[in-house]
Amino acid sequence: MSDTSLSALGASDVRETLLAAAAAAATHTLPRFRTALTVDNKWEEGFDPVTDADREAERVIRDLIEARFPDHAIIGEEWAPKDGTGEWGWIIDPIDGTRAFICGVPVWGTLIGLTRAGRAVAGLMAQPFTGETYLGIEGAAHYLRGEEIHALSTSGETRLSRAKLSATSPDLFARADVAPAWERLSRAALQVRYGLDCYAYCLLASGHLDLVVEAGLKSVDIAPLIPIIEGAGGIITTWTGGPAEAGGNCIAAATPALHAEAMAVLAGR
Amino acid sequence: MSDTSLSALGASDVRETLLAAAAAAATHTLPRFRTALTVDNKWEEGFDPVTDADREAERVIRDLIEARFPDHAIIGEEWAPKDGTGEWGWIIDPIDGTRAFICGVPVWGTLIGLTRAGRAVAGLMAQPFTGETYLGIEGAAHYLRGEEIHALSTSGETRLSRAKLSATSPDLFARADVAPAWERLSRAALQVRYGLDCYAYCLLASGHLDLVVEAGLKSVDIAPLIPIIEGAGGIITTWTGGPAEAGGNCIAAATPALHAEAMAVLAGR
Repeated sequence: MSDTSLSALGASDVRETLLAAAAAAATHTLPRFRTALTVDNKWEEGFDPVTDADREAERVIRDLIEARFPDHAIIGEEWAPKDGTGEWGWIIDPIDGTRAFICGVPVWGTLIGLTRAGRAVAGLMAQPFTGETYLGIEGAAHYLRGEEIHALSTSGETRLSRAKLSATSPDLFARADVAPAWERLSRAALQVRYGLDCYAYCLLASGHLDLVVEAGLKSVDIAPLIPIIEGAGGIITTWTGGPAEAGGNCIAAATPALHAEAMAVLAGR
Repeated sequence: MSDTSLSALGASDVRETLLAAAAAAATHTLPRFRTALTVDNKWEEGFDPVTDADREAERVIRDLIEARFPDHAIIGEEWAPKDGTGEWGWIIDPIDGTRAFICGVPVWGTLIGLTRAGRAVAGLMAQPFTGETYLGIEGAAHYLRGEEIHALSTSGETRLSRAKLSATSPDLFARADVAPAWERLSRAALQVRYGLDCYAYCLLASGHLDLVVEAGLKSVDIAPLIPIIEGAGGIITTWTGGPAEAGGNCIAAATPALHAEAMAVLAGR
């Protein structure tokens, strides 16, 4: 088990930074969600509300982190990486689920994570339209919505035949190197739910989904979610069992037993 | 064009009934959404929070309608049909998107519609977790959320190659009689979004999706949504161009031109 302690930084400072950065980002994302600009496909004329929201949200998140932790590295989707002077690094996906955003579906989210020597140690997903925040820090995960705060816990599901499985799209598995594995897994699960992006991992952490499997993820898509999943008692790795921080083909499960069974099916064992 | 006038009943009475019935239903659905019961799969032991929510929500909707319109017919998912004495009938799906409900995804909805001689003339979709209501009545459609109220309008999209298409699951199209048609259509669209149930039709009415195509619908799944789609300027029919009130294979489009192009692709013309 990696050391996920934040004592060197101060956990409350990290928590407060995550929440403040997400709130700042929301002022740039939410006003552009479901606007006439996205409806009218005006980006052909040079408008692109989604890219604007992405870039501006990441900018304010970076500004806030840089002001508080000037020696930390920062990696994001929209701007050049900033080198740090130590082992700490932040990783940002201002709008995970761009297509959901464009289609008006409130399952996109702002992802912000903190890594220590490459290992994700704190992370947040915020969905401004529903007002939900999922926060993983110091080995625990919490759900916040308005006045509501409660600890997150994955389901106790251990069997694939009873598992509610999710993936963002079947198109992720069109490639020949992953198609047969997905075919086996999706047939063996109780049911499959598509279309959830980052929201799926948060529903896994909440105990409502049991298994999330995706292919071809980027680091920014998944690293901030790892502390939420692990803090809720879940397990996430690559399809070959390695750490998921770098992205690629990833599998998140409610329990180690379910993870092991699903890994065996993916591998065709 | 059918006569969608409600003057014989009083449009404000119908509107008020739809909103009051949805509010009453929410007191039975929302408290059961994302509960430990749904998490723990306790229905194997005799608990079934989703069926309880379904049955109790439909009961309060029926009670409210029967008290106000005692001679109207009522059809719902959970209880026996009630015959009426005239041309008016109500149609209820207390939780459309049961699987979304079970998985914690807030795209399920309470559907309530009013038909006149079999033609849907008023309808509502309410999503209590997000606090959204989509209402179609008297030839117009509106979005309501808290203090926010605005008219709904479909996108102006006329070309399939630019259309954002949605369907609840690719599994709907596994049957040999619909698989090739879906394969052609999904390849021709700009993108495909799965997993939205009734919420997809409301996003179509809002202009965020351009095309929704499904197979094997029940009447209660679709009839209450028709006035929302049509009131927003959209068009909905069966795959063979007939009225969609009875369900079956249905196609909803933002514009008549897009509908015609998608119909041609479905038919293999």
